Amino acid sequence: MKRAVVLLSGGLDSTTTLFWAKNKGYKTYCLIFDYGQRHRREITSAKEIARYAGCKYQVIKISLPWKGSSLLDKKISIPQSANAAFGRHPAKGGGWQTGGAPAKAGRANVIPSTYVPARNTIFLSFALSYAEAIGADSIFIGANAVDFSGYPDCRPGYFKIFNQLALVATKKGVIGKKIKIFTPLIYKTKTAIVRAALNLGVPLELTWSCYAGGKKPCGACDSCVLRKKGFLALQMEDPAYA
Amino acid sequence: MKRAVVLLSGGLDSTTTLFWAKNKGYKTYCLIFDYGQRHRREITSAKEIARYAGCKYQVIKISLPWKGSSLLDKKISIPQSANAAFGRHPAKGGGWQTGGAPAKAGRANVIPSTYVPARNTIFLSFALSYAEAIGADSIFIGANAVDFSGYPDCRPGYFKIFNQLALVATKKGVIGKKIKIFTPLIYKTKTAIVRAALNLGVPLELTWSCYAGGKKPCGACDSCVLRKKGFLALQMEDPAYA
Repeated sequence: MKRAVVLLSGGLDSTTTLFWAKNKGYKTYCLIFDYGQRHRREITSAKEIARYAGCKYQVIKISLPWKGSSLLDKKISIPQSANAAFGRHPAKGGGWQTGGAPAKAGRANVIPSTYVPARNTIFLSFALSYAEAIGADSIFIGANAVDFSGYPDCRPGYFKIFNQLALVATKKGVIGKKIKIFTPLIYKTKTAIVRAALNLGVPLELTWSCYAGGKKPCGACDSCVLRKKGFLALQMEDPAYA
Repeated sequence: MKRAVVLLSGGLDSTTTLFWAKNKGYKTYCLIFDYGQRHRREITSAKEIARYAGCKYQVIKISLPWKGSSLLDKKISIPQSANAAFGRHPAKGGGWQTGGAPAKAGRANVIPSTYVPARNTIFLSFALSYAEAIGADSIFIGANAVDFSGYPDCRPGYFKIFNQLALVATKKGVIGKKIKIFTPLIYKTKTAIVRAALNLGVPLELTWSCYAGGKKPCGACDSCVLRKKGFLALQMEDPAYA
């Protein structure tokens, strides 16, 4: 049975990606990161989801002592974003206006304060290590470049180059074998992701997307707003927000 | 004053690289990793060196619970390598025969058991995060592809692609600024590195290269053998082995 490492945050996108990989016949190994995020509730969710899905998982604890992100530093407030839903892929004519602070017309590349420097590169490098150690040839990440927060390390061009890196970074690559990064949700709208989640039997009630760090989802942060958009279009209630 | 993050292991190569960067006028910020390596003595050395050099430093503790390397797993013995000194850069006609177990003639790409899956990718991803958080536009790593152990993530092609990744992985990259990875030792022989260290005033007696995890350097592991080679050619005693 082919093996895959899945980056699992406990949110809607990564959980859907996990079930996507399982549905494709992979034996999945989840990587969960405890990186000092204020929304620590997502770690509990991720572990519950991995157990629900019957997957092995590793929780990797890392510290990023340099902060510089509102996800790591409680002194910086989480942006309340009415504009989050307007992130668009540039291929679709949208530029990268999105984000935490209301995006200004004509100003591309607004990246919100929730951006954590090089976070996906850190996560993927651990995934690469894990994949090589267990003999997995695939890594799945639930990154999305349509209804997203504008993070640079969620864009198609980023994953294209990370795939090139994976070829030269590992022992496996040197002997001509590949470890490939898959981003099955990259071009999907949030609505399409919710639809996929429903089809794949994702336990939506277990997922956690909110950044704010409260006991209930705030409904106002980037991540909550984007998620809400997905459910609204399908005219259904989000079981995690019930 | 321009800032640089320097990956500092406490060994000869990374310490020389630190002094190289300082000599080029950078304000240097050291990153030291505590990743469960059996030769924990190098962490103490790295901290001493950073203090000696008057640099700020961060010690990042990470766990790689999947093991798979003799540097992480004491059940796997550290190779005693008489062949370590024969690693050659392919551009110089040498192939990649090198390593822990004696390299067999005609068999390229022998990578020793001391290889830690994706280690440099993990280290560089943290460096990228640190650099972006403190506004540094340079990262220095003491990788070497001449007298080295054959690790894939020490080769020029690897760093070339990591540099491409750095352009798309960060917020800084998105707004058209670069964070660049420099490998000043990449094409140097170990002898040339020792010579550079002497010229730069590197405190050689503080450095620690041995993999074995003892209180004194073993003199027989890959890393000790390569280091010995550098000093032998200059007919000088290595102060760290005195």
